[in-house]
Formats: sequence, structure tokens, C-alpha cells
Amino acid sequence: MNRDEALALDAADPLAVHRRAFLLPDGVIYLDGNSLGALPRATSARVREVIEHEWGARLIRSWNEARWTDLPRRVGSKIARLIGAQPEEVVCADSTSINLFKVLAAALHLQTARPQVSVAGRRVILSERGNFPTDLYMAQGLTHLLGGHYQLQLVDSVAIEQSIDESIAVVFLTQVNFKTGAMHDLAELTRRSHEAGALMVWDLAHSAGAVPVDLTAAQADFAVGCGYKYLNGGPGAPAFVYAAERHLAALSAETFAQPLSGWFGHRTPFEFVTDYAPAATIERFTVGTPSILALAALDVGVDTVLAAGIEALRNKSVVLTELFIAEVERQCDGVMLVSPRRAERRGSQVCFAHEHAYAVMQALIERGVTGDFRAPDVLRFGFAPLYVRHVDAFDAAATLAKVLRADEWRHERFLQRATVT
Amino acid sequence: MNRDEALALDAADPLAVHRRAFLLPDGVIYLDGNSLGALPRATSARVREVIEHEWGARLIRSWNEARWTDLPRRVGSKIARLIGAQPEEVVCADSTSINLFKVLAAALHLQTARPQVSVAGRRVILSERGNFPTDLYMAQGLTHLLGGHYQLQLVDSVAIEQSIDESIAVVFLTQVNFKTGAMHDLAELTRRSHEAGALMVWDLAHSAGAVPVDLTAAQADFAVGCGYKYLNGGPGAPAFVYAAERHLAALSAETFAQPLSGWFGHRTPFEFVTDYAPAATIERFTVGTPSILALAALDVGVDTVLAAGIEALRNKSVVLTELFIAEVERQCDGVMLVSPRRAERRGSQVCFAHEHAYAVMQALIERGVTGDFRAPDVLRFGFAPLYVRHVDAFDAAATLAKVLRADEWRHERFLQRATVT
Repeated sequence: MNRDEALALDAADPLAVHRRAFLLPDGVIYLDGNSLGALPRATSARVREVIEHEWGARLIRSWNEARWTDLPRRVGSKIARLIGAQPEEVVCADSTSINLFKVLAAALHLQTARPQVSVAGRRVILSERGNFPTDLYMAQGLTHLLGGHYQLQLVDSVAIEQSIDESIAVVFLTQVNFKTGAMHDLAELTRRSHEAGALMVWDLAHSAGAVPVDLTAAQADFAVGCGYKYLNGGPGAPAFVYAAERHLAALSAETFAQPLSGWFGHRTPFEFVTDYAPAATIERFTVGTPSILALAALDVGVDTVLAAGIEALRNKSVVLTELFIAEVERQCDGVMLVSPRRAERRGSQVCFAHEHAYAVMQALIERGVTGDFRAPDVLRFGFAPLYVRHVDAFDAAATLAKVLRADEWRHERFLQRATVT
Repeated sequence: MNRDEALALDAADPLAVHRRAFLLPDGVIYLDGNSLGALPRATSARVREVIEHEWGARLIRSWNEARWTDLPRRVGSKIARLIGAQPEEVVCADSTSINLFKVLAAALHLQTARPQVSVAGRRVILSERGNFPTDLYMAQGLTHLLGGHYQLQLVDSVAIEQSIDESIAVVFLTQVNFKTGAMHDLAELTRRSHEAGALMVWDLAHSAGAVPVDLTAAQADFAVGCGYKYLNGGPGAPAFVYAAERHLAALSAETFAQPLSGWFGHRTPFEFVTDYAPAATIERFTVGTPSILALAALDVGVDTVLAAGIEALRNKSVVLTELFIAEVERQCDGVMLVSPRRAERRGSQVCFAHEHAYAVMQALIERGVTGDFRAPDVLRFGFAPLYVRHVDAFDAAATLAKVLRADEWRHERFLQRATVT
């Protein structure tokens, strides 16, 4: 491929118009939307309206008048459309980490509540060693709190399927791996878990807004996901929680199936009764008062994804990542593809290993290509098809080739590791 | 007092100038800043800068460049100055509810880790029946999750002191009661708890920014508080957590003393290691990625309080609430003071009971006086001295008198109860 061919792909791209919905800095090819999504053009005005009118002018009455109270559900029901869920199965709340704690606890609760399952035999929570660390940390915190009753078993990615047996209470996985972009078969692993009598919790942090997910078809149990990556909700945007309707029904008989039992998850939060009684709805997975500013920004971000359509986004994402892989492999030496080569096994990111990945990424960033580095040796490039063009993928590969050919990354200023990335 | 005397108090008020730092709607006397603080004039521009420049233009690099990563600590260290804590003892995170879960778990952990205390004999968590419900709900969720090992004991306010005995592991109370404005003696109850070998957790939701708190002098153990009331951080603003430095030191040997062990509380979050290892600092009480928009707004709100000074605010608050009580009692029939009459036992709010409080409050709101109703019969008026004037307190009392004298509240449109307040 040459650059003109990439430009021709953009000219013919039905999604090209969506790039205009974003404010992007000049001179930057932003391949980090998988870490922090770009800013939708409409966000600033919407947040300003919330601040100045809803908060400033209308003050406390906006809880009713502007429907702040059901904003977590309204945004959740939009996200539901991106992940194949029913509108009433998704709510926005807290962070992905905290939501994982809730659904893991709820899954364990459901699991131990099943009469047909031997409780004593189901003490293992299974995950992948390469899962995003906070997911592992939250599970570690939960199992520790439960006094060692449950044991967290971590296996390599390739060993997951064979490890799902009848000792497992709950399997939890991130569908798209943060470091490699490798994508699990959500339907198949859910089926395998159910076959073994285990429940399945999915983290869709790198899936929602990037790849089509069909939780209903997969008969998924629980899921969580992130608002600030492909959903463009802004730094630290609220996360979301999904619970299958059948589980919500089963849980509704239980008071504390979700242990973070705050007032927003109460059946009647504004009656201020002494005893917790959870909402029968997905709102039982909410806890304290949600940030309305943050939810408003997320709402705008989710709209940008819905406007394009998740199938079209995935199609473009595959073209972008294929193009990038082909051009990097054609033009660059010393890099090795870490992501799966087959598009259907890959999320919307491409990772290459390079011995001096940190320095290479610093040099790339200085040349206007923003990706990121993941220890020890990964160059990570996210392709958010809402605003990344084919020519961006082409130019990024060409820039990487230039940086590598000229050994630019060997400059001292690139070799120093920052403490935070 | 007459209205001119109230105006004279405003003319002589050294804090009067601070009202200009807020955007307040015309024609409204806002006595609900204890529920949702008013909008600081600087907030909208600051949030816009964060959205358009830090997020939009600088994107992912703002985590370092704009120091987003330490924003929770920076805002926390400002709040520390309002509650008599050291800067390194306070961090912003999540919601008050979730923070209470963390510190209750940490307190139980510390309590059971004390060699001199019989673990078996310390299974009771003590609180007040009239505590804010979400605090009770979170404790209920935690004790349920711990399998009934701990028991939550709720007593009436008057019985708290006598109930603190050697069966109690942890006492948790909200310093200023949300419904009555009654204020506990924080130092004395902390001392009593320690004397009995119990730890003490304070919820400062209605204290921070309203009354001077000296956690250091009280040798307090843990505290949480709210960002959206007197701190003017906006609807659903992030909350805060305080842990005494001596406890942070003791906890630093323990990996999971705080069970919501997310990556932001990790010692090295960006090294992406598999096992959780908590930060030795107060940041161990943070969990997932924080909302930067929400924190930026809170930062501005906290600055408005710091600019005025908490002692001066308290002095004015006492004058405002005394004035209001005196005028209501002089002018109104059928209302009964629910808040303590002695200022030193009262937070920055005044509550009166009225048989038809809901309808009375609706009629008041229609006349431009915004307070709120708390079931079954409470009219609640918050006095945020940053922006409430003496004449506002006077006029609010006069308006209440008018509503009551003319039986305005009997109009059908006021009698219907909304489902959400």
C-alpha cells in the first residue's frame, strides 16, 4: 500500500464524517484511545450546561427536574445497545474496579445459593494471569476479606479453557487483553463455564465501543466495563455494570447479594429507612451519589459511538489494524507482532514488541504519534475508528519505520524511564 | 430584630464578599447548601479548561503533565486543613458510602490485629439509629459479607455514650445529624471509644466546610466525608477519606486491610504487577481511576471554603442559625424546633417540625425559599455562610411565617408527595 491508497480508503469511508465530532490536537496521530478516548466536540457545552444551568441555576431541584437520579440508568441503557444487553440490564456506577468487586461478590453469592451445587466443592475463582491488574487486585481483596474461603487461581491464557472444571465457582476475564489486544471468544468461554456449572464475569473495558458484544446471545451472567476508553467519556469517567435479567430476578430475593449496599441501590432511597432493601432493578448495583458532571460527559461520549454504529466501527477497526500490521511488517525491522494476527482474535489494538520499546515510544510521541508503552517491551497502538483515519495508520507505521531506521530512539532523552506512564 | 438590623449585619460581615464567588439564581434564598452546595463562579471555567485543554488538547499525557494522578491527594490535602488533619492523611475518592465501607473494614482489621484485645469479645459495631441511612446500609452490607462474624448494634442518640463498652470493636457516627442538625462531641466520643478499646469512625458529611473539626487533637482514627455539600464540589462530587498517620503506618504491613484494593491504591500502579501491594500512603484508600472532571470541580469548591476560613464561617453560621431560630419562633405558630437550641450542639442547619412539613416546604419553595423536607415532619434549612446572608435568614423566617399564617400550604398542589425529593 502507498499513502494515496490510504487516503482513498478515507475518502470512501462512511465513518469519516464522525471524526468531525471530535476535537483533536493538530499534528498528532492519536493511537491511545484505548487508554483515554478523545474529546467529543459536544462534551464541553453539555457539561457547561449541566454546571451553569442544572447545578448553578436550578440547584437541588435538578435531581428531579433534570432527572439526575436516573442518569446512571439512562446512560447505562445506551451502553446496553453496544454490548447486546437489554436496557434494564446495565447501569453506570463507580469505577470498573469497584464494579468488578460487586459482580464477583454477587456471582459468588448466586453460586453458593444454588442448591444443586456442592458449596464446599466450589471455592475457586479462576482468571488469567495476564488480566488487567486491578481486576486481579479486586479479586484478591475480596477473597482476603472472605477469610480464605475462596481461592483465586490464575492461569495463562492458553490454559483457561482446560482449567474450567467443576471446582470453579466463578470465572472472570477481560475479553480483550490490555497488553496484547488478544480477544477471548466470549460466547464460547461463557458456554464452557456454564457447562462446568460456573458463572462467568466479563470485563469489557477494551470491548465496549470497540467490538460488537452480544451478552444476551452468550447468556452472559455479569459484566463490567470502562467509560473512558472507546466510550469517550473523559478521564476517569464512570464505569458500567451489567447483570443478566434472570440473575437480577434471583438476586431480588436477597438483601445483600451485592455487598456495597449504598443508598442509591436502595428500593426507596429517599424514604431514609434504617434497613437496606435493594432495588429489584439493576440499580441495586449503584452505591453512593453519582457524579452528575462525569455522567453527563460519558453520556455525550456514548452517543458518539451509537451514532456510528458498533458493526461499522468494528469493520473499520479491522481494516485499520490490518493495514497497520501490514505496513509495520513491511517497513520496520526489530519489531515482532504481539497481537493475534487473525483479526477475529484481536480487539481494536495492535501491539508490537521491541527490545527498547519504552525509548521507541518516546521517540514516536515526539514525532506526533501517540501510542503507549507497556512493560517490559510492548509498543501499544489503539485504533479508535471513530476518529482514526486510514492515513493515520499508514503514517504511524511510516513514522515508526523512520524512528527505527534512524535509531532516533537511542537519544538519551528517550531512554530515561518516567515513573508514571 | 427587624429587617434593617439584618441588613446591617450583612453590611458589617467580613465574609459578605465571598458570596460574590458564587453564581446564585435570582429570587431564591437557598437554604439547601447542606444537600447540594451552590456553584462557585470559577468552576465552569476550570472544568472547561480541564475538558478542552487537558483532556482535548493534551490527551493521555495529562496524567503526568497536568498531574491528574495526584489530584486525589492534592484536593485531599486541602480538605485536611478544614478537618484538622495532616495533608498526607486525607485523599479524595469514590463516594462517602464506599469510603465508609473501606474505613470500617480497615478499622475492624486493625481492631482484630491488636494483640491485647480479645478478638472473640469484639464483635459489635456500634452506631446511631438515626445515622444517615447509607452509612447503616454500608455497614449492613459489610457485616453480611463477613458472614455474621460482626453484629451491627444501633442505639438512639442519647444511648450512644453508655453503649460504648468493651464489647464494641468499632463505633461509627455522623458528627452532624442529617435530619436534626444535632452535633456530637467528636473529641469526647472519640476519647470514650478509645477508653473502651474501640476504634472510632466519623462521617463528616455535614461537618466538613461547616464546622471546625480537629481530628488530630481528637486523636481520631478514621473519617469520611462528602464533597457536594458545604464543600461546593457539585452534584455527586467525589468524597474523601481520612486515616490517622499512626494507622497508616500500622496498616502498611498489611496487604488487604482495605478490601477495595484497586490499582490506584497500589504501591506501583503503573508497573502492572500481578499481586496487590498497597501504597504506604493514604492513597491505599483509592481504588479505580478517579473522575478528573469531578475532582477539578471539587478542587474549586474546596478553595471557596479555604478562602473564607473555617473559624469565620462557623462564627457566621452560628449567628445565622440563631437569628433564624429566634425569628421563626417569634413569628411562626405550629412549628417546633427539632435542632438543639444550644449552638455548640448544632451543625450549620436548623430543623423545625410541622405536622404538614412536606406541603409547607413546597409552598416555601414556590415563594423562593429553598430548604428541604425530611420524613415524616421535618423542615430542614441549611445555612452555608459562604453565600447565605443575614437578611436571607430573616426573610426566610418571614416567608415561613407568611406561608403558615395564610395556610398557603393547604393548596392541593403542595399536598401531593413527590416520589423523589
